[in-house]
Amino acid sequence: MNKETIGQEFRALQLFICNELERVDGTGKFSEDAWDRTEGGGGKTRTIRNGSVIEKGGVAFSEVYGPVSDEMKSQLKMEGNQFYATGVSIVLHPNNPHVPIIHMNVRYFELDNGIHWFGGGIDLTPHYVVQEQAVLFHQKLRSVCNKYDESFYPKFKEWADEYFYLPHRGETRGVGGIFFDHLNNHFQLNKEQLFRFCVDLGESFPFLYEEQVNWGKNKAVSESEKQWMNYRRARYAEFNLAFDRGTKFGLYSGGRTESILMSMPPVAEWEYDYQPDPESPEGKTLAYLKEKHTYL
Amino acid sequence: MNKETIGQEFRALQLFICNELERVDGTGKFSEDAWDRTEGGGGKTRTIRNGSVIEKGGVAFSEVYGPVSDEMKSQLKMEGNQFYATGVSIVLHPNNPHVPIIHMNVRYFELDNGIHWFGGGIDLTPHYVVQEQAVLFHQKLRSVCNKYDESFYPKFKEWADEYFYLPHRGETRGVGGIFFDHLNNHFQLNKEQLFRFCVDLGESFPFLYEEQVNWGKNKAVSESEKQWMNYRRARYAEFNLAFDRGTKFGLYSGGRTESILMSMPPVAEWEYDYQPDPESPEGKTLAYLKEKHTYL
Repeated sequence: MNKETIGQEFRALQLFICNELERVDGTGKFSEDAWDRTEGGGGKTRTIRNGSVIEKGGVAFSEVYGPVSDEMKSQLKMEGNQFYATGVSIVLHPNNPHVPIIHMNVRYFELDNGIHWFGGGIDLTPHYVVQEQAVLFHQKLRSVCNKYDESFYPKFKEWADEYFYLPHRGETRGVGGIFFDHLNNHFQLNKEQLFRFCVDLGESFPFLYEEQVNWGKNKAVSESEKQWMNYRRARYAEFNLAFDRGTKFGLYSGGRTESILMSMPPVAEWEYDYQPDPESPEGKTLAYLKEKHTYL
Repeated sequence: MNKETIGQEFRALQLFICNELERVDGTGKFSEDAWDRTEGGGGKTRTIRNGSVIEKGGVAFSEVYGPVSDEMKSQLKMEGNQFYATGVSIVLHPNNPHVPIIHMNVRYFELDNGIHWFGGGIDLTPHYVVQEQAVLFHQKLRSVCNKYDESFYPKFKEWADEYFYLPHRGETRGVGGIFFDHLNNHFQLNKEQLFRFCVDLGESFPFLYEEQVNWGKNKAVSESEKQWMNYRRARYAEFNLAFDRGTKFGLYSGGRTESILMSMPPVAEWEYDYQPDPESPEGKTLAYLKEKHTYL
């Protein structure tokens, strides 16, 4: 299983996901923006705007390679002269606050000395937490994980709880999901199996999200719910810009800014020390995000 | 000149600035939020919302002290067991896109081993750059600097150009200003004179801003100008969350989140790869920010 095959299959995965998401949305269509990287490789960023379900979203594919930069060396803490990296990453911001924001990415990285690994994650960020929806999401993630290794879900769920966390707010980003990195032959599975796991997650993604969409897309929305959505979108912006390792590495190392920041919400609002009534749905969501939860 | 005096005078400076800004605004009033820091000290955060001129802003005073944490040690790269830090910091987001966003801060830091310094800065972020306004701003800054040391303005202007820069956008945050740090007895001036310089800057601040406000506050505003303002506010959010050293240090070291993030705009909007017409006022501002400028 060579890197070219992985890159090609990730590119196909991007198209599969976009087609399925267009079906889920009903009216929104993706536009494609192809770009080249001076030092080697490039990508195709596909974005969707003002659909029936998705207000702003992106599904990005990239395949980049070339000499290992100093920035990369200090980040990687390992030797290597040439690298290759490919991945698909997604963030979708829905119109309706009763539909959650969702993020997914799968990626492959290798160095010319033979070191290589897979990484990725999916997490769900409801504007209003509904326990039943979160359970549904985690059940599906576990069932994909279990096809490959029963230790994956509990381990990767824990990892997501640590990663998708806003320390300055004392809040989780949402109801979590799974996160994994540096998956390689140290695990029970061979390279091909690990790759299949990533593709399987990617192929499950639109169906996982469809369930979440159908739950909330027809719910009526008040002005105060829209405002709350914008406050939660501001938290999403805070996480991505100040804490997300992928975003930070991308911005600091000269990655393609527009592709990195396609994850940003269409709008965000900040209010000094905003505190919802603890008995309101907004207050209950906030309290929920301050606790750690298990879903299964 | 001991630290208690500096703290007291900074506290008085906060009140002076708030009173003058209320006069400039006409209708907006500051509310005060006092807070304590568990490990020692605290602050008073004063915020203003929906004034006639200022849509959202804050003028914060803090005076904190206690044992030097590990986080602080690795940041400071110097020895010391106990620290003391006090400062005033300001960010104002106006209603009218023809009035610039402004930021200022002055601060004092000391360690129990006698090491101490002053730092600070002011910078102006117009949504629409007007060269004449920028010149006026820089002239006033230079005249304050020149009362103390004629080397200050050219040196600190350069420093601001480096600091208030968004590398991932290849843009300056705005038309710059001055930035300085680690000012101490290595300079020609003694501690009291350096302190006077900081206070003088602070006392000049509301009058500097008043000129900028009067220039634009009565200008008519179109919907597309409001939208452009929200795109520029998104850049402000990007700078503060991903690049501003003070914000990052505060968020990572457990500072008071609401006081740190009072700098955030009321609203921000992101659009994938938004490119204004190069011949439009928006396009001209964007092109301007991609170049380095001198004003005097």
